[in-house]
Amino acid sequence: MRVRFERIWAGLARIGGGGADGYRRFAWTPVDLALRGWFEEEAARRGLTYERDRNGNQWAWWGTPGPGAVVTGSHLDSVPGGGAFDGPLGVVSAFLAVDELRERGVTPARPLAVVNFADEEGARFGVACVGSRLLTGVLSPADARKLRDADGVTLAEAMRAAGADPDALGRDEEALSRIGAFVELHIEQGRGLADLDAPVGVASAIWPHGRWRCTFRGEANHAGTTRLADRHDPMLPFASTVLAARESAERLGALATFGRVRVDPNGTNAIPSRVDAWLDGRAPDAGTVRAMVDEITEAARAAAAGHGVRVEVVAESTTPVVRFGDELRDRIAAALGGAPALPTGAGHDAGILSASVPTAMLFVRNPTGVSHSPAEHAGVDDCVAGVTALATVLEELACR
Amino acid sequence: MRVRFERIWAGLARIGGGGADGYRRFAWTPVDLALRGWFEEEAARRGLTYERDRNGNQWAWWGTPGPGAVVTGSHLDSVPGGGAFDGPLGVVSAFLAVDELRERGVTPARPLAVVNFADEEGARFGVACVGSRLLTGVLSPADARKLRDADGVTLAEAMRAAGADPDALGRDEEALSRIGAFVELHIEQGRGLADLDAPVGVASAIWPHGRWRCTFRGEANHAGTTRLADRHDPMLPFASTVLAARESAERLGALATFGRVRVDPNGTNAIPSRVDAWLDGRAPDAGTVRAMVDEITEAARAAAAGHGVRVEVVAESTTPVVRFGDELRDRIAAALGGAPALPTGAGHDAGILSASVPTAMLFVRNPTGVSHSPAEHAGVDDCVAGVTALATVLEELACR
Repeated sequence: MRVRFERIWAGLARIGGGGADGYRRFAWTPVDLALRGWFEEEAARRGLTYERDRNGNQWAWWGTPGPGAVVTGSHLDSVPGGGAFDGPLGVVSAFLAVDELRERGVTPARPLAVVNFADEEGARFGVACVGSRLLTGVLSPADARKLRDADGVTLAEAMRAAGADPDALGRDEEALSRIGAFVELHIEQGRGLADLDAPVGVASAIWPHGRWRCTFRGEANHAGTTRLADRHDPMLPFASTVLAARESAERLGALATFGRVRVDPNGTNAIPSRVDAWLDGRAPDAGTVRAMVDEITEAARAAAAGHGVRVEVVAESTTPVVRFGDELRDRIAAALGGAPALPTGAGHDAGILSASVPTAMLFVRNPTGVSHSPAEHAGVDDCVAGVTALATVLEELACR
Repeated sequence: MRVRFERIWAGLARIGGGGADGYRRFAWTPVDLALRGWFEEEAARRGLTYERDRNGNQWAWWGTPGPGAVVTGSHLDSVPGGGAFDGPLGVVSAFLAVDELRERGVTPARPLAVVNFADEEGARFGVACVGSRLLTGVLSPADARKLRDADGVTLAEAMRAAGADPDALGRDEEALSRIGAFVELHIEQGRGLADLDAPVGVASAIWPHGRWRCTFRGEANHAGTTRLADRHDPMLPFASTVLAARESAERLGALATFGRVRVDPNGTNAIPSRVDAWLDGRAPDAGTVRAMVDEITEAARAAAAGHGVRVEVVAESTTPVVRFGDELRDRIAAALGGAPALPTGAGHDAGILSASVPTAMLFVRNPTGVSHSPAEHAGVDDCVAGVTALATVLEELACR
């Protein structure tokens, strides 16, 4: 299995980047089409029946597609400068778990499918989990078609250019009704398993999270001639807000990040007229997220008022807590001989699907906890342990 | 004169933007060529002899070009989102001062020229005062030709595309040797004259100033899953540095601005790997600038160390203090009946030329002090007062 893992992994690793700059695997680009081609080939190599659903998600069926299916997989796209594991490890492990079950001589009593969800990261069009959101109907096809990338290309245009039909987008009752259970394997994006000294764990919950755009509007002016007292410099309250967010997150046991900033006009000798900054906030429960964002908003307002700057904080997206079903989770943990359960702060297709079908997640140990970075890494032994665990889970769910 | 000012001003105002978004008049673009066409027309309308020098600066001569000339003018290019006055007011006033002298029946004893310096703002290629720096030889033609704009186009390519010859660039002894004195009229970029209740003033000095690039290198990671304690988030020490810079500038009676920021990878759910921020620093004397930048660097280092972030502060450009000659300034102030003298924090072509030829500047009152912004404004009466004052200064210098 170790050799087989390394071989399939090397084949995928060549597509869409790698090295010190990481991967750039954006939805519906030529790189994405190459990844999709890889998926079709792996399905064909195993004699699995290939399908693409209305929303661009790819399926590879072992057995006749139909209700009660046990589905596993993840996504192949990445963030800019992404790592090799976030997404692909779940798809690779799914194919290898099929191999493992066949080697074990297992014949599933229910259909089994490997899935690659479209555009999970949302790196190109700004909305995460587009494939699973469309499938389950939480994103409307009209809204999806209008999404635009940084070059102004709409999702509809990008799909058409890639030979897909954006008019077919929408909640897919047929595809959804087939899923008896969905299990997503993913590299852990933290050091929970490393601290527990366990190679594989089971997800308990996904923290509620959201994105808030903070817009600071001041007054453009000349950096060399405007007296400090006459300035309305939005960079200053933005800076205060960054520090206040960290302080608030620390105190409340939450996470707050300003990772994206846009400055207008962004000239060295120009006091900015405007700074837009995006707050990513997460916590174990929705009340804490709300309390933290309220505190940060209050800090932004106070700092802005001191500089004659106007501030506006707008929620761009909020996602409630996801609690994976206790029954499925306990059954899986038991099948794995008592794998530890742990929460995560990251969103996943499994989180979207959990509102519609029984869903679970397996995590594979990440020694450094680094994710969304070229340095993201899991050891081969742990990846193989993940495949073995996934095969055991699929056997439990598809045969018993 | 008021009517004449409004007419010539309206003709120029149509070129290259205006309105709420301000002007975008970048060097060697089609907009710049339109502005250059306007200059040629105004020269022709007055029967002035038009010349373009080796470095792309435009000259309009009253009398035979030659040594001892009294030269006046400014520039026509702008920053992005710039105002209508910074630059153009000096060129328009120069043409109108010629008209005014002719109406007064003045015949200059020495040649008189109106000049439009190329690429003063440096908005396109990143270096300010390119036309005057090349003319005086403080910028080497080889370095100038290699400058690149945001699209990767070099200055040499841009000049060629605009029908100019980049191979001719370089210190221009002939053009330089003709300048007996240079007087640049400019809208004030502060409220010094407004506070003094004076429409026109004379420059005493240009503050020393510089640009420092501060690079904070941390570690990219997932915003939703990385524990605060495990982060190396460069946004946090950057924010601390912004606040430290303001505090230091306030205490030292200097100016410090962070107006330009670049975040990598600049994703909402990604802890940045790197933040680059440019510090614009100015003060009445070089020692204060140095002390301030040292303090800010120290604050950046301390904040970065607390987050396991590396920081590097590199001077991209520094300009020493410019003290306009007392003799010329006093002669001009006396001709104007005791106009107030005041310093400025902004760089100008006059500052570059002051190292090579006798140079002076006139400022026109700016009621709000706003500059490099669509809101930049001077009243028509004050603009007319500026033209009258400039004509008086030219008469003093060219006839006595």
